[in-house]
Parts: sequence; structure tokens; C-alpha cells
Amino acid sequence: MADKRFFSNSGPFTLAELASASGARLKDGAQHTLSIKDVAPLETAGSGDITFLDNVKYVAAFEKTKAGACIVREKLAAKAPAGMALLLSENPYHAYAIVASMFYPVYQPQETSIHPSATIHESASIGEKCEIGPNVVIGQGCKVGRQCHLHAGVTLSDGVEIGDGCTLHAGVHISHAVVGRRVTVHHGAAIGQDGFGFATSAEGRHERVPQLGRVIIGDEVNIGANTTIDRGSGPDTIIGEGTQIDNLVQIGHNVVLGRGCIVVSQVGISGSTKVGDFVAFGGQAGITGHLTIGSGARIAAQSGVMRDVPPGETICGSPAIPAKQFHRQTVTLQKLAKEGQRNDDAA
Amino acid sequence: MADKRFFSNSGPFTLAELASASGARLKDGAQHTLSIKDVAPLETAGSGDITFLDNVKYVAAFEKTKAGACIVREKLAAKAPAGMALLLSENPYHAYAIVASMFYPVYQPQETSIHPSATIHESASIGEKCEIGPNVVIGQGCKVGRQCHLHAGVTLSDGVEIGDGCTLHAGVHISHAVVGRRVTVHHGAAIGQDGFGFATSAEGRHERVPQLGRVIIGDEVNIGANTTIDRGSGPDTIIGEGTQIDNLVQIGHNVVLGRGCIVVSQVGISGSTKVGDFVAFGGQAGITGHLTIGSGARIAAQSGVMRDVPPGETICGSPAIPAKQFHRQTVTLQKLAKEGQRNDDAA
Amino acid sequence: MADKRFFSNSGPFTLAELASASGARLKDGAQHTLSIKDVAPLETAGSGDITFLDNVKYVAAFEKTKAGACIVREKLAAKAPAGMALLLSENPYHAYAIVASMFYPVYQPQETSIHPSATIHESASIGEKCEIGPNVVIGQGCKVGRQCHLHAGVTLSDGVEIGDGCTLHAGVHISHAVVGRRVTVHHGAAIGQDGFGFATSAEGRHERVPQLGRVIIGDEVNIGANTTIDRGSGPDTIIGEGTQIDNLVQIGHNVVLGRGCIVVSQVGISGSTKVGDFVAFGGQAGITGHLTIGSGARIAAQSGVMRDVPPGETICGSPAIPAKQFHRQTVTLQKLAKEGQRNDDAA
Repeated sequence: MADKRFFSNSGPFTLAELASASGARLKDGAQHTLSIKDVAPLETAGSGDITFLDNVKYVAAFEKTKAGACIVREKLAAKAPAGMALLLSENPYHAYAIVASMFYPVYQPQETSIHPSATIHESASIGEKCEIGPNVVIGQGCKVGRQCHLHAGVTLSDGVEIGDGCTLHAGVHISHAVVGRRVTVHHGAAIGQDGFGFATSAEGRHERVPQLGRVIIGDEVNIGANTTIDRGSGPDTIIGEGTQIDNLVQIGHNVVLGRGCIVVSQVGISGSTKVGDFVAFGGQAGITGHLTIGSGARIAAQSGVMRDVPPGETICGSPAIPAKQFHRQTVTLQKLAKEGQRNDDAA
Repeated sequence: MADKRFFSNSGPFTLAELASASGARLKDGAQHTLSIKDVAPLETAGSGDITFLDNVKYVAAFEKTKAGACIVREKLAAKAPAGMALLLSENPYHAYAIVASMFYPVYQPQETSIHPSATIHESASIGEKCEIGPNVVIGQGCKVGRQCHLHAGVTLSDGVEIGDGCTLHAGVHISHAVVGRRVTVHHGAAIGQDGFGFATSAEGRHERVPQLGRVIIGDEVNIGANTTIDRGSGPDTIIGEGTQIDNLVQIGHNVVLGRGCIVVSQVGISGSTKVGDFVAFGGQAGITGHLTIGSGARIAAQSGVMRDVPPGETICGSPAIPAKQFHRQTVTLQKLAKEGQRNDDAA
Repeated sequence: MADKRFFSNSGPFTLAELASASGARLKDGAQHTLSIKDVAPLETAGSGDITFLDNVKYVAAFEKTKAGACIVREKLAAKAPAGMALLLSENPYHAYAIVASMFYPVYQPQETSIHPSATIHESASIGEKCEIGPNVVIGQGCKVGRQCHLHAGVTLSDGVEIGDGCTLHAGVHISHAVVGRRVTVHHGAAIGQDGFGFATSAEGRHERVPQLGRVIIGDEVNIGANTTIDRGSGPDTIIGEGTQIDNLVQIGHNVVLGRGCIVVSQVGISGSTKVGDFVAFGGQAGITGHLTIGSGARIAAQSGVMRDVPPGETICGSPAIPAKQFHRQTVTLQKLAKEGQRNDDAA
């Protein structure tokens, strides 16, 4: 059960309501009117809770769970404890996401509330039903959509636009940006600052190059805590619709990220690299500037990408190479080192 | 001498007082009543100062130091300049830490002081002798212990609890968390935000999964500047007592870190990984999710850990392997490359 | 054309004015009095704009640009579209930087402006013509030079000094530091916090070591968003004049960076490492503590540097080795893996 100090529960719902919303199918024997009061992990769920099984590492926990209901793939249903109500889904985690969001919907303000300590320029426009927290600063000419929630200490520099339904968490700083709808930005993310652009004279003096582009962020983008997204140098930096960016990620100037990309924590994408749709970047991967990464490519964690990546390719290593080749090299080196060791031992 | 603009000195102390507090032993000839006025590095210490020698790289500086006293291992004592008072310790750096903390104790407020610009919800409870800086925001139902120091712009979201004697530096944002006693959090750290949890539909739409856990932080934990610690997805994210976390570290949802771990800057630990006690992570190491890292393991800098690590093991490389094996592979590759080079040169 | 919501243009200028300021040479046929209204990228520039060609990857765009004028190397001038005015330079990007800064100069406040929500200690001194934004906090004994611009939520802890002409963006937190002139610090950077210094007792208890040094930042340094620079432990942490630091970089205690260094995003430099002048660090490189990196060295992206680096050396890999050796090893491993594959295929 989620800690009531931090979370409030919109339930209960019947099993049929949860199945219908999530697109899961009730397994024979599951009672449509069963009242489900909460979501919970396998280990701690009780008879009023619904849980899910997605990662096979947790089958043992599934077999022992005391949950009243569980979302599971059909092929694993047989391992369920006796008497548990099952919702069958080919994508249990996705169905669980919908179910859990019914119990714990994203907070959206229902009336206008502007803290007296906020500093809002008279020329800024704020949509209906926004909640503006303490010490928020909104600059000249800013436009904030409807039902936005700006937590304490958020700063929007002059001219910034934010679409409807956005949540900006405490300490987010945005400048030179146009942000879409239903975008979430977490604690301390920095968006729109100068790109790392300078030109070096023959004497070694670094002259800053004015960065004259913007950051354009599509609808339903999520941006993690303390992540940094530089504005473009002339062209814009663009984050496509639905792209999910984790904490402490660096996005350089003029980078274009397509739709639905996943960028895990501590990834760095250097300036002017163009990324297609649905590309996944593993944690700490680093991408050189001025590259093209095709749609559907998968960049393994800690990779160092120095060349263009074709659509759909999976690459690993630093410098990054196709995954098969990387694994072959890994195995080859392992084998050679062992042979060397045996020779040394024999000598 | 520490810059008086930034530091104030609680000394002087006698050599005997310093030895007694730090557990060091006065070497024969050291005068018990010698008055020590300050701590200083080997290079700049003068006759009223105490210094220390720990890293053998600095023996040359030790031989030339003008310090009045020095904490040193017995076996290096002979290299001391003539006439210098010596405190012998098997752990000179630890003894120095205690001595330096006598001269420069951590600031603890001695009376209640709440800046008029702070926004504190009427339902929040604030312990005795807290110092609450400008623009601090403390939400509904928060509990702050005794003698806490919240610097400018700290934000505690609704329900957050902070134990006695904590120091939260400027711009720290905490939500969904229960924090122990004597915890220090540095500038801009972000604690308790949503984990990176979403489920992807068949059409590629990423649905956020409500993150219903908390962050639980043990006593005497230190958390570095701009570090990010996500709250659990259902289970909690847990940081064990005495664990030291450097700057720009990412801790994913549901991670459990044991007691006394050391996590150097820019490390990333992915979701649901469980770490034992006294594990050391070198800088920029990355750890995949859902792993178990045994107590006392040592993860080298820049490692990429993709498998469980047994207790006490030292691992290196990306993907990470036992240190011995890694070094053997490094040497093998070096040798083969040289042979190839010789063959090419001969050809 | 830069978005007027975010940028204002100080032009137009004549071609001769731009050439003279930037040190570029008008190619025969270019009209001295041609009025240039703006800068723009090759792809979008129109007849009133000046653009530049530096990276040969963009020659095709150059051949098609509709710009009225372009800064270009002499050897590429022949590829220019007919009728375009050319400014010849051996360093087109540097000349462009100067030209663009004429159109879009760095904002410098021209009169004193202190927001009423700022909290400034009575003992602090603020130079002429400073602009101090909302919720800025300036502590006891701080000194701020002339024409500084402190954006919303900046915090200067007691004793901090800032030279003339500095720009500190929103949410920057500085303590224990002396900052030079014309320094820019981006959103959320954290400067002057405790270094990661502690000593571990035999029982595994980590005792924090008071960090008694400062951060000293030279003139014309740039510091990126959410970057962290720890203060010295006794000696100071020093950033040399003109050094450019990108986002999310970690600089440990006692690090000395020379003049004109370039530190790309997500680099980590561990404590007490000394770096010469004009050293370039590629993104995500990690440097062990207590090393010496010679002037002019180049550290490739993602390198893991574990040994001293001679002046001028280029190194790669983790652990890092000279670039030639690294490439030889990469090629050797590639070859051996292919041979192994062929043998397996043949078997």
C-alpha cells in the first residue's frame, strides 16, 4: 500500500473496470465484480490488491504472492497461486501502467492557484486552472497553457511557452524554449541554456558563439531530474513527441531526437546529431556530434558512438560496433587471454 | 590557514587533546602541551599547524614541511624533519579527519531562525533550533527534526520527513522521502522524483507507470551536489546508514544500497539492483538493473556491470569481469598488437 | 532569423564593418557597403544574412545557400553560389563568432536593478549597474563586481566574491569561492560544496574530512548547466582563465585546470589532479585523482585516464593509452575476431 503521506488512492475499481480500461482479458473464473482497492508489488500485495508479472526473474515471487488479482501473460498463468483472479495480457506491464494510473492519476490542478511569492511578469499569460507554487518566476511574454502545475522555484525566462497540462517540478529552469502539452520535467532540469559553442583563435582564445536557436519539446515528453538540454546554435534543438529522457542526460545544441525515443540516465548526445524515432539509448552511452542514428536503432549502455547508425541496428562498445561483432570480439579476447594463461602456466 | 571569509576556527588545542580525541599516539619527544592553532596541508603548514601524511606520493613534501606537528604512520616517522612533533597512527587520514573536525566542526544551529521569506505549511512540524533559510518551501505534513539547517531555496514536498541534525544545502529538492539523522545533502541534489518507469504499447506509446514507493535514507548519509535519487516504483529506494554518495550520481528506483557504501561521482545504478554493505563504486561505473552486488565488492571506475557480483569481488571493464581476468586480457591484447606491429614492420 | 521572443538584433552592419571586426578579408567583388541584417545557418539564410562554412560536411549546403554573404576558407571559395559576397578567413568559425556577437551581444545590465524579493545581507557589497533577479540570496560579506547579472534564485553563500561582468543563470549556487571577471555560469551549476573527502575507520565508519579550501575561478571561464565543482580540501580547486566547461561535468577537490582548457559534457576529473593549459577533454572522459596532465594533451571521449599524460599527447581507451597504440589494438582485435569467425565457419 502506497504511503498515505505521499499518495492518495482513487480506487476501488471492479476487476471488470480494470480489465476494460487496460485492454486485458479476464481469465475464466475471475469474478467481474471483485473489488480491487489498490495496486501492489508481488511480494507485499494482499487480497484486495492487483499486481503484475512481467519479468520472468520474478516467477518465484508470483507463485507465492497473496495478491487478489494479477496481470500476467497467458503462458505463465498456470503458475498462479490457486484462487487468484487473473487478467491476461500480452503486455502485462503496459496493462499495469494503465491500471495503476487509475488508482493514482497524475495530479492536475482543478482551480487556479498562484502563490503570493511568485513573480509573474504582467505581460505573461497563464491559462485556466494553473497551480503556480512559491517563488516561481515567469518572465516577460511567457505563455503557460491550461492546467499546468509549476512547483516551487521554477523559472521561465522571457518568451518561454508551455503547453496545456504540463508539470514542472521544483527548481526547473527553462529559457529559449517552446514546450508542448502534457510534458513533465523533473527537479532541477535545465533547458534552453547556451550550447557549448565557441571558436578558438590562433592564440587559443575561446570566443563564445551566440546560440540563436531554441529548444522545441513535443507533446508528452518526460525529462528527468538535473538533465540538461542546450538550445540550438541557429537551428533548434528538438525533442520529439513522447520521448522519455531519464536523469542527468546531456542533449547538445541542434540535436534532433525523434518520436518515442528512450534515453536512459547519464547518456550524452553531442551537438547536431540527428536521431530517428523509437531509438533506445542505454545508460551512459555517449554519441559524437554530427551523426545520424536511424529509427529503431538500439545503442547499448556505455557505448561510444562515433559513426552513423543504420535504422534498426543494435550497437555496443566504445568505439561502438554492431552487437554481433562486439560479442565476437569479446569472446575472442577472452579465449586468447585464457590460451596465453595456459601457455604461461605450462611454461 | 583556511580563508577567514569562509571558515572559522575553534582552536587552539594542545597536542595531547588532539591525540586523545583522534586515537593517535604521541611519539616520544612530542610535547603534550604544545598549542596547535590550525590544520594545514604539508606544503603550507607552519609551526603552529598540524598536518598529516597518508599517501606515499607526498613523502617528499613531508620531508620539507614546516608544520609544527604531523600525523603519520610509525614506519614513515623517521623521514620527518628534525624537531617536528609526531602523532603516530595506523590510519593518519582518519585521525586527521577527527582533528580537523575539532578545529572546523560542522555548523549546527544553536537557536531557531526562520527566514521571513520561507513558505512553511501550517501543518508542518519543525524541531527546535532549526535554521531555515530564505525561500525555503516546506509542504503539508512535513516533519523536520531538531537542529536542522535548510539553506536557501530548499524544497520539501508534502509529507517529507527529515531527522535531527540534517544539513540541506541550497537548492536541494526532496519529495516522497523519509530521511534519517545527521544526513547532509549538497547543492541541487534531487531526491524522490518519479523513477524512469513506463510501459510501451504495441504502437510504441510509452505509458508512465505511477511510482508509488519512497526514498528511505539512513543516518549519516552524505549525498553529493546535483545527484539524483529516484523514489521506488512500489518498493522503496533505500540508502543505508553511513553511505557516501558523490556528485552527479544516479540512483534508480528500487535500488537498495547497504551500509557504508562509497559511490564516486557520475556512477549510475539502474533500477531494482540490490547492493550489500561497504561496496565501493569507482567514478562513472554503470550498473544494470535487477542485479545483486555482494557486500565488500569493489567496482572499478568506468566498469559496466551486467551480472551479479559476489561479495568481496573486484571487477573491471565494460562488460565488467573479475579484475585479474581483465588485466590478463589487457596484457594479451597489448602483446598481440605489438606482435602484429612487428610482423607488419618486418613484412 | 532568431526568434524575436528570445533574441534581439543589434544590426544591421555593413560587410566592411563585419570584415574589419572579425579579421576576415573581403574577396574581390564583395561590396563593402552591403548591408547585412542578420546571421543565419547555411540552410535558412537569405539575401540579407551572413553565414559561414567551417565543417566540410556542409559543403553541399554551402553550394545551395541563399545567404547574401558567407565567411569561408579561401580554398573553398570557388564552390560558392554565384554572386554571393565572401569573407575569407583561415578560421571561419572564429570570424563568425565575432560577427554573430556583434548582432547578438551578451546582455550586460546598464543600470542597477535589484528585485524586491532578493535577500541581500547588509554587509554585502554590490557593484554599479548590477541586475539582481527575484529570490536571489547574497550572504554576509559577499562582494559582487560591476555589471553582473544574477538571474532568479542564484545563491551566493557568505564570503563569496564575483568579479565584474559576470552572468550567473537561474539556480546557480556558489559557496567558498572567488570568481573572476566576465565569468558565465549556467542553470543549476553547483560550485564550492564539500569535496568527497572522508577517512574510513577500521570498523568501516566514514568520517568526513573538513574541506578547508576554496574554488578560485579565473576570468572568462564558462561553466555549464548542472556542473559541479568541489572546493579544495586545504589547497584550492582552481579553474584557469578562459577555460570552457560544458554541462554535467564533475571537478573534484584540489583539481587545478590550466588556462584555455576545454572540458566537454559529463567529464569527471578526480581530486588533486593537475591539468596544464589548453588541454581538451572529450565527453564522458574520466580522470583518476592525483595525476598530472601536460599542457596541450588531448583526452578522447570516454577515456579512462589512470596515469600521467605528457604534454601534447593524445590518449584513448579505458584504461587510456596513446591514440596510435589504441587504434592498433582495435584493429588487431577486429582482425583476430574475423579470423576466428572464418575458422569457425570453415570448421
